[in-house]
Amino acid sequence: MPMAASLHTNFLQNPNRHLNNPTTQNNVFPVTSIRTIKNTPIRPVSIKCAAPTTTQIQDRFSGQAQSQDRVFNFAAGPATLPENVLLRAQSELYNWRGCGMSVMEMSHRGKEFLSIIQKAEADLRALLEIPPEYAVLFLQGGATTQFAALPLNLCNQDDPVDYVVTGSWGDKAFKEAQKYCKPNVIWSGKSEKYTKIPSFDGLEQNPQARYLHICANETIHGVEFKDYPTPKNPNGVLVADMSSNFCSKPVDVSKFGVIYAGAQKNVGPSGVTIVIIRKDLIGNAQDVTPLMLDYKIQAENNSLYNTPPCYCIYMCGLVFEDLLDQGGLKEVEKKNKKKAEILYNAIDASNGFYRCPVEKSVRSLMNVPFTLEKSELEADFIKEAAKEKMLQLKGHRSVGGMRASIYNAMPLAGVETLVAFMKDFQARHA
Amino acid sequence: MPMAASLHTNFLQNPNRHLNNPTTQNNVFPVTSIRTIKNTPIRPVSIKCAAPTTTQIQDRFSGQAQSQDRVFNFAAGPATLPENVLLRAQSELYNWRGCGMSVMEMSHRGKEFLSIIQKAEADLRALLEIPPEYAVLFLQGGATTQFAALPLNLCNQDDPVDYVVTGSWGDKAFKEAQKYCKPNVIWSGKSEKYTKIPSFDGLEQNPQARYLHICANETIHGVEFKDYPTPKNPNGVLVADMSSNFCSKPVDVSKFGVIYAGAQKNVGPSGVTIVIIRKDLIGNAQDVTPLMLDYKIQAENNSLYNTPPCYCIYMCGLVFEDLLDQGGLKEVEKKNKKKAEILYNAIDASNGFYRCPVEKSVRSLMNVPFTLEKSELEADFIKEAAKEKMLQLKGHRSVGGMRASIYNAMPLAGVETLVAFMKDFQARHA
Repeated sequence: MPMAASLHTNFLQNPNRHLNNPTTQNNVFPVTSIRTIKNTPIRPVSIKCAAPTTTQIQDRFSGQAQSQDRVFNFAAGPATLPENVLLRAQSELYNWRGCGMSVMEMSHRGKEFLSIIQKAEADLRALLEIPPEYAVLFLQGGATTQFAALPLNLCNQDDPVDYVVTGSWGDKAFKEAQKYCKPNVIWSGKSEKYTKIPSFDGLEQNPQARYLHICANETIHGVEFKDYPTPKNPNGVLVADMSSNFCSKPVDVSKFGVIYAGAQKNVGPSGVTIVIIRKDLIGNAQDVTPLMLDYKIQAENNSLYNTPPCYCIYMCGLVFEDLLDQGGLKEVEKKNKKKAEILYNAIDASNGFYRCPVEKSVRSLMNVPFTLEKSELEADFIKEAAKEKMLQLKGHRSVGGMRASIYNAMPLAGVETLVAFMKDFQARHA
Repeated sequence: MPMAASLHTNFLQNPNRHLNNPTTQNNVFPVTSIRTIKNTPIRPVSIKCAAPTTTQIQDRFSGQAQSQDRVFNFAAGPATLPENVLLRAQSELYNWRGCGMSVMEMSHRGKEFLSIIQKAEADLRALLEIPPEYAVLFLQGGATTQFAALPLNLCNQDDPVDYVVTGSWGDKAFKEAQKYCKPNVIWSGKSEKYTKIPSFDGLEQNPQARYLHICANETIHGVEFKDYPTPKNPNGVLVADMSSNFCSKPVDVSKFGVIYAGAQKNVGPSGVTIVIIRKDLIGNAQDVTPLMLDYKIQAENNSLYNTPPCYCIYMCGLVFEDLLDQGGLKEVEKKNKKKAEILYNAIDASNGFYRCPVEKSVRSLMNVPFTLEKSELEADFIKEAAKEKMLQLKGHRSVGGMRASIYNAMPLAGVETLVAFMKDFQARHA
């Protein structure tokens, strides 16, 4: 067997291998690991190419050109994904592991897709150490759909529930719940422009509240819970929207009745919403609940009551595998803390040139909003950063300024490049 | 510039080209067209490969191996997709047209994704000649979510609506509507095992019905409307679930108030549901309607109220482009008719060895259910077909037997191979 063919065979036999090599994280392709399979260093080879192979080679050249053009994408979601996950998805898009189909073409009831969704769930359970008394659901419609599904499933129309509102998303969740139960805002950070998290002791919880709702990380305002309040009602539960910090750090799932998250920040593309729910909370949906929003229907059918968003679930599965390969969420959190520290330090050390409005103790590891003292320079900042291939740094339209979203998949190099640019920009404009 | 590099440049400059060449439809890669660019036939070349290129070549070898293994996938949905669309998606998965991001990573409010969703809508409008007074929505949750959204948006709780039930999906739609209005089944094919479509003259429509609901093609039972009934109520509208025959033939959209379809049969992967709705029907949702099921919210925000299923929409866009390149839905219908004719003829000419229970005039062009006279041979049939790389031929669990779903993307060769196998199987077992 010629050397190239032999290598190829090895790659096919162990397509996971490059996911296990942390050194390849920011590479275009795991050249190093491939080149040393079986301790056989590979040298450049001459290959006599037949016509079809010619076109194939050309296609791969395009891959190389692309990798040089990859940007640092600071978007708040959909957001940057791990390069190795994208490359793996690309390599198996047309034919998933030799089954002769794309994942996009598979029957959701076939053995191939069942293996994909079951592995995704198992890996997520491992990552978050989800107790067996919790169900994991892969749903559609984003967190906004859950804003309705939660009260529809957990309450009767007259039940009181408590909302702590630390930003726009918590506020939206509260407003939607008004259709289905009696929600009450027991704390709002609005008057302080959503820069704080309340002290839990001071919360005036309704002792009858069926649940206490928080948004664990406010994507727009960059405010993150570092610890979690306990419901005053011993029969009540804590419910958290974790869309923008899901799987960014370890979480004690047993403290929650429900955790829900749109995937498109930390764990996949848009189109799938993950719900982790304690099983005893399932089965009491209001009569007006659409079938697809009824957790009982979804749980009894393992998220397969109708056709789920198969490809999105597959992508989440690849990300979960990658997070496990990195050493799990403790390791991921370390990286996230380091990235955030570098960025917040740069802001705080700028003598007020850059400003982050959020109270230091609750600053988000994921979404870093900041403004310029000279706000008239903000448009230039964003424009010049884009020229340096740092995109999507504009703050949400409701708050202005800048925002750098530095989710799991944002490499350290991206934050370092941003900080270097910030210092240079300041030197030129201070 | 060496020849290979020159070709590569051409490919990058016009990545759409292979989509325009109908001769490449069933090829793995448009080798023919690439090989004759500028009338310069390409010969095999020797390429001196540096190390990274070595790995890239190996990766493409895997592509070649995969193509040889591609199966004929007769699944009812998710279902086979056009090979050229898959290959194009693969080529630009990692970096969409040089923007430095995957489509999966793009902000849904950025100019790149907006261009994708706008082109998808424009191409769909061109395909179906959708009048300007209709909105096109890209939603989540499958047709099952629309079973609730329709009555929630079109009716008050006391409004009567009519359902013609020609199979399981129409029945499910009816049952869900019971939560939100007063639906009535004015015709059901259940007693005849869903093998017929009623005569429209005999339908006892409620003259007050807000809408008349049909399932244009019943995926499980293989029954398809060839024409459409007119609502008796002059202010009522016709509503159709077209999930399994969407974009398989021309449709006069102006006859309908609402057309809706899960994408995962004819136009894309699962995870996106397309709703085409006359704009004057929008804006009257019941109070209990979840935000995400309110057509007004979705229409006012161009399907971007929250993050849409971006990658699924992108894939649909590629399929729409491919359908236009094929000459539009009239041409697509011709191909579908030919495929269906070959298959039904083989069944009808088998002297009863194979049987299709559906009345001939309403047999589906998309889903062909059939049984064996000797039903004890059905398991062997499915098993032997799978050995010949024809998969997912088992009938739905509720009806048994076999079912061949032959959507737009099923090549003629797939049907021909199936028919040849059927004849051979019959010869061996008659």
